[in-house]
Amino acid sequence: MSNTVRGYAATAPEAKLAPFQFTRRDPRPDDVMIEILYCGVCHSDLHMAHNDWGHTRYPLVPGHEIIGRVTGVGSAVTRYQAGDIVGVGCLVDSCGHCAPCAAGEEQYCLERPTPTYGGVDKQDGQPTYGGYSERIVTSEKFVVRVPANLDPKSAAPLLCAGITTYSPLRRWQVGPGQQVAVVGLGGLGHMGLKFAKAMGAEVTLVTRSPGKEQEARRLGADHVLISSDRQQMGAALGRFDFILDTIPNQHDINPYVATLRLDGTLVLVGLIGPIDPPVHSGALIGGRRAIAGSCIGGIAETQEMLDFCAAKGINCDVEMIAIQDINNAYERLEKSDVRYRFVIDLASLKG
Amino acid sequence: MSNTVRGYAATAPEAKLAPFQFTRRDPRPDDVMIEILYCGVCHSDLHMAHNDWGHTRYPLVPGHEIIGRVTGVGSAVTRYQAGDIVGVGCLVDSCGHCAPCAAGEEQYCLERPTPTYGGVDKQDGQPTYGGYSERIVTSEKFVVRVPANLDPKSAAPLLCAGITTYSPLRRWQVGPGQQVAVVGLGGLGHMGLKFAKAMGAEVTLVTRSPGKEQEARRLGADHVLISSDRQQMGAALGRFDFILDTIPNQHDINPYVATLRLDGTLVLVGLIGPIDPPVHSGALIGGRRAIAGSCIGGIAETQEMLDFCAAKGINCDVEMIAIQDINNAYERLEKSDVRYRFVIDLASLKG
Repeated sequence: MSNTVRGYAATAPEAKLAPFQFTRRDPRPDDVMIEILYCGVCHSDLHMAHNDWGHTRYPLVPGHEIIGRVTGVGSAVTRYQAGDIVGVGCLVDSCGHCAPCAAGEEQYCLERPTPTYGGVDKQDGQPTYGGYSERIVTSEKFVVRVPANLDPKSAAPLLCAGITTYSPLRRWQVGPGQQVAVVGLGGLGHMGLKFAKAMGAEVTLVTRSPGKEQEARRLGADHVLISSDRQQMGAALGRFDFILDTIPNQHDINPYVATLRLDGTLVLVGLIGPIDPPVHSGALIGGRRAIAGSCIGGIAETQEMLDFCAAKGINCDVEMIAIQDINNAYERLEKSDVRYRFVIDLASLKG
Repeated sequence: MSNTVRGYAATAPEAKLAPFQFTRRDPRPDDVMIEILYCGVCHSDLHMAHNDWGHTRYPLVPGHEIIGRVTGVGSAVTRYQAGDIVGVGCLVDSCGHCAPCAAGEEQYCLERPTPTYGGVDKQDGQPTYGGYSERIVTSEKFVVRVPANLDPKSAAPLLCAGITTYSPLRRWQVGPGQQVAVVGLGGLGHMGLKFAKAMGAEVTLVTRSPGKEQEARRLGADHVLISSDRQQMGAALGRFDFILDTIPNQHDINPYVATLRLDGTLVLVGLIGPIDPPVHSGALIGGRRAIAGSCIGGIAETQEMLDFCAAKGINCDVEMIAIQDINNAYERLEKSDVRYRFVIDLASLKG
């Protein structure tokens, strides 16, 4: 099999994604070679393609919600073999020796983990290219196993949207007897509802727009709170033990903070930027409340999450697309017009 | 003993504090009558006198760091008797039945606790007057016992500055093996250093101005970090498990957040207002860091704190003043010119 790989890349902030050929490395002893079957379309793919965060290197092959089939393994690989259905998420390397790495929290690696795309390989200095492509070659340390009873198509977004919501719910020990709110009903939010419900909490979807009641209940919400309704928000003051805020762009979190009870925590997983309008510290002090952030999850926890999904019958709600439809999908994603995640069927690349 | 009490009051935002006579209530069955010996001067006394928070009712008799001697008790009082040396802090009542009250966290009472001054008594609707006065009458539920081996003069500020710093250090389980930073070296900060050290942490004072090294070490700091020194701050990235931020006015907390390690928490106890400049959420997400607030402490915890001080030989560093010097003390307090808390000797009122 040649090292040349077909994929789709962005070549400039304003450019549409287009076919692109590049080279994958020769496998190292710990590498797994994966034929990519499906790849989820994450909101950060769009941010990176448009250089919204100012550090994009072009050409950029996005995609970090990868499901594939192992086609071969390096000599030192012990956990995988050809034919296995596996996943690769947001990271493909980390230093391996700092305290977070030692604790299995590779996403917080003090030497910065290597992102699956848009990064630079620590060993050969070559750019990393993501899952909008035929194949990927990556260390088995950053590969997870997809349980047999998970539909691989729908499992793709678990690698980012799934773990990003699962990890903070675990970290803050969400469970029975707790009132949990999920703010926003996108790719992250719909997984937050499913996980929080499966962990035993009483779950509320917080959303600006009415009309999502039935859909929210189908996904696991016990209640829906309309954040644009002052009366509803007033009645919810001090209600929640935990709030998972999945909104990916600037918004006022003060109304949500006010709905936290004593010792409650609001965790941001979507917003990356200044918390503006500023949070009023009085609301933190007056209820010993906290605002925190959380970033995806470690590799071991990602495996735990996949196993949890298999055990609980949880999967993402996805809309399958061909790679040729990616630019249209980006436009729809910008308008939040997707329930709830686009997944690319990479068979379309072979067409 | 007449119900008429002499004190000092502010009568308008711009007015200096001046002698003022008012009436204390007839004791209720659960009331303790206290002759005030000493009263600490808290930064919020100044804010309230100047109506900085917009809700001051005049005349205002400040003072919520009260140490006194019991002169008599109501028929239902069981814990105190005449002659006892006791303390009254920031609160004199709460609903008593909400979840925080039931948990001994009266400061977070959902029906709002009654402040020692500037509030309204829940039973008779009369204004509450604070410790810049001869006597106070208050329910034994909000009275704490001053251990015999604590100097009562220096103990006064423990009722606010002490418990405000002790409580979050306990809540976030500060102890041996942890790196703890205290930001600011005022009334709160100097107690934060003493407590964090006594709890076994390795303690760093974070301050803008050099020259406090020796003083900080005397108070318990192992290290001093100059926040205006970019090199020092750069070397401190990711260092602290816990930061106690005692600065009472608007400041940029982003440089401090960056010095938190994975899962570290910064707790605000001084700033009451918008957190502006805004916190960058990337710093929270990138290290699963949290920002929280904490408000004084419950009554049982205040007693625990006084007992801890007695056991560990901890006290406040105070500068004694006569009540007639209060306006001068306020001017000096605005310039942070006090080591570290003014305490009024109420014997001066009798002069």
